[in-house]
Amino acid sequence: MRTVDLIHRKRDGEELSPEEIAYFVDGYTRNEIPDYQMSAFLMAVYFSGMSDHEVDALTHSMLGSGSTIDLSGIPGVKVDKHSTGGVGDKTSLIAAPIAAAAGVIVPMMSGRALGHTGGTLDKLESIPGFRTDLTIDEFRAQLASLGLAFIGQSADVAPADGKLYSLRDVTATVESIPLIASSIMSKKLAEGIDALVLDVKVGNGAFMKRQVDARRLAQMMVGIGRRSDKRVQALITDMNQPLGFAIGNALEVMEVSQTLQNGGPTDLTRISLELAARMIYLGKIVPSLEEAREVAQKHLLDGSGYRKFKDVISAQGGNPQVLDRFELLPNATGAREILSPRAGYVSAIDAEYVGQASAMIGAGRDTKDEAVDPAVGVILEVKIGNKIDAGGVLCRLYYTGEDHVEEAAQLIEDAFRISANPPDQRDLILEVVG
Amino acid sequence: MRTVDLIHRKRDGEELSPEEIAYFVDGYTRNEIPDYQMSAFLMAVYFSGMSDHEVDALTHSMLGSGSTIDLSGIPGVKVDKHSTGGVGDKTSLIAAPIAAAAGVIVPMMSGRALGHTGGTLDKLESIPGFRTDLTIDEFRAQLASLGLAFIGQSADVAPADGKLYSLRDVTATVESIPLIASSIMSKKLAEGIDALVLDVKVGNGAFMKRQVDARRLAQMMVGIGRRSDKRVQALITDMNQPLGFAIGNALEVMEVSQTLQNGGPTDLTRISLELAARMIYLGKIVPSLEEAREVAQKHLLDGSGYRKFKDVISAQGGNPQVLDRFELLPNATGAREILSPRAGYVSAIDAEYVGQASAMIGAGRDTKDEAVDPAVGVILEVKIGNKIDAGGVLCRLYYTGEDHVEEAAQLIEDAFRISANPPDQRDLILEVVG
Repeated sequence: MRTVDLIHRKRDGEELSPEEIAYFVDGYTRNEIPDYQMSAFLMAVYFSGMSDHEVDALTHSMLGSGSTIDLSGIPGVKVDKHSTGGVGDKTSLIAAPIAAAAGVIVPMMSGRALGHTGGTLDKLESIPGFRTDLTIDEFRAQLASLGLAFIGQSADVAPADGKLYSLRDVTATVESIPLIASSIMSKKLAEGIDALVLDVKVGNGAFMKRQVDARRLAQMMVGIGRRSDKRVQALITDMNQPLGFAIGNALEVMEVSQTLQNGGPTDLTRISLELAARMIYLGKIVPSLEEAREVAQKHLLDGSGYRKFKDVISAQGGNPQVLDRFELLPNATGAREILSPRAGYVSAIDAEYVGQASAMIGAGRDTKDEAVDPAVGVILEVKIGNKIDAGGVLCRLYYTGEDHVEEAAQLIEDAFRISANPPDQRDLILEVVG
Repeated sequence: MRTVDLIHRKRDGEELSPEEIAYFVDGYTRNEIPDYQMSAFLMAVYFSGMSDHEVDALTHSMLGSGSTIDLSGIPGVKVDKHSTGGVGDKTSLIAAPIAAAAGVIVPMMSGRALGHTGGTLDKLESIPGFRTDLTIDEFRAQLASLGLAFIGQSADVAPADGKLYSLRDVTATVESIPLIASSIMSKKLAEGIDALVLDVKVGNGAFMKRQVDARRLAQMMVGIGRRSDKRVQALITDMNQPLGFAIGNALEVMEVSQTLQNGGPTDLTRISLELAARMIYLGKIVPSLEEAREVAQKHLLDGSGYRKFKDVISAQGGNPQVLDRFELLPNATGAREILSPRAGYVSAIDAEYVGQASAMIGAGRDTKDEAVDPAVGVILEVKIGNKIDAGGVLCRLYYTGEDHVEEAAQLIEDAFRISANPPDQRDLILEVVG
């Protein structure tokens, strides 16, 4: 088997066999196939796509490159939730406690902020003392006792994916649906889960800008999961404005607290409850989705989700009082209002711009090794459809140093469009796949 | 300027500026841009193509990466001829002496055999003593005295192209029309020529299998040349069977000798004369193509082309007597007949198979550093359209060692198709571009 022939065939749109895909991934992981052949192959995949057979083989080759976690000793159905990434997306911190409160076992393996999107681990780590570096034994023990634990992805899980992702990042091959799908699913299948709820974001703040692409990604991930005997459902949800009002790590934890006390933004509450309901349904707590929705609603309203999150914070070394006393969270030292240049209706809020502005002042990172500033971010005062006066406050930018504040403020100003007429209403949950 | 952003934009079909293309090529040549980013870029170019502006910028960046040859001190119009490569294609050794005999200055910079295609340098080096490693001063002096000199491409000419070609070879990005066009033209523009005649081969023995691709390549090369103020014409010629009867280095020199004495195969004679006529016309020896055709014909018939080739052989250290006494050329030690399995008409001869078979027994090479065996090759006994009896000789395989002879014989047998009815006649010169 010659590597160049495999690239050639993929380039020409031929289907490679599982053995050929495995040869490529294994050879690359063992440094026998050089980066320059893999990057050419990845670009060929970007253009030629992959069949179901190919994407399954790629997923399982990456999965097989590392270790998997055995959760079979813990009774109950294990259900994880994964988002493809958005701006202000803190649904994991709401849906997971609600589902766990309802009896689902939720082994939550999360990622970090990258580019304009936030990361669950960074949000949790804004809580003083919170540890995301649990050992696998600690992780298992906490799942058994509380039904929910948050952990970062171990380097032992799908190392081929990590190596490939680093290469994709510098070769403009990130935005390939089969590559995204196999990357996500190889890591999720390593977690020892029984079921998975996916939140595929679409819009200006998401990786998928078009609904047709989001649908293809969702279908591909659901297919990979099902062919591996996992129950998988995907929601396709709108990311054409930030979710909720808060963007930035500690600011988002505050909004999570409000939402778990049923005082959060309606868009965030609605998506979080639907995700929790799907987790409860796939977790076989109740036999129908309708009942699962009632169960999720109940565990929000009775505060059991909120208490579950506090228990998890305690168990992982954090101070649960932060959820009631926000002054215990890292706080910004400066604030700046972004004002509307004219009266009208908010017709667009470019979520990518808002995410980039937050990242620019320290809430996110451009490369994996940068630290984030937990205190900084943006609080929106308006959302799409709201009326605003000339000079009215669109949002507030919270910062700790003056670096990039001007630039960030300008970017956020550019993110808002103010129109004379109210915009059309848009759906929040666009589709369900699976 | 971030390299990954340039790959991204090319991937998305955007046009890069000349400065951006130059940044990419220069950075790669200086080892500042790694192979893995260049290979992803090349694959993106394979799929997205390049505009005229981009291919000009790529050509001139590669040209500017090395030195150019100044031939302005030599009076007369300098015209080179270049073939995209075929099987049995020895037209350079016929057209160039005829054009030079007619007064054109022909600085012939040639390549070596690679894969199933032959190379002019290897053919010349089958003549005992023939030197293709002239210094630039020797090359200039011979051009001034004889009007024709053969030389290999110096490593100083377009080194970026050499580096890129090596990468393309292992990343399945050879077959890209803008990459092929810029590679050829960067080297040709470095030669100090005024005009260029291109022979773009199309068919089963050529890199371009389809006429539409050959036309696009021809148009792109002619365009690059003209925008650099060179007179350029391209013939698109058939390579659906080997050209002439001989394939293999010394065997082809013998056929060249016969052809220059007006006793060669009609297809080879016809293309060689047309190429010579175009060189004579672009070399401004006569004002019209019609007259140029007469001049070429005359220099074939009066033996002046033949004598010119002998003079060049002498000047470059070879023994010109080889053209009359073939026993002075390297000769094979074994021969094997390939017989027709049935009576009928020869309806196809896969030139790529014949080329591969020849290469397999030593006439060609798979990698740049292999040596070739000058003596070995194939002599066809029939061409497409000929009638053959069952058991009649299709061709003879000439070899010096037994290695791969069986395999080569089988491949050649597979190359021939014998049909009950005579095939349609096909054109030899399919199109003229420019």
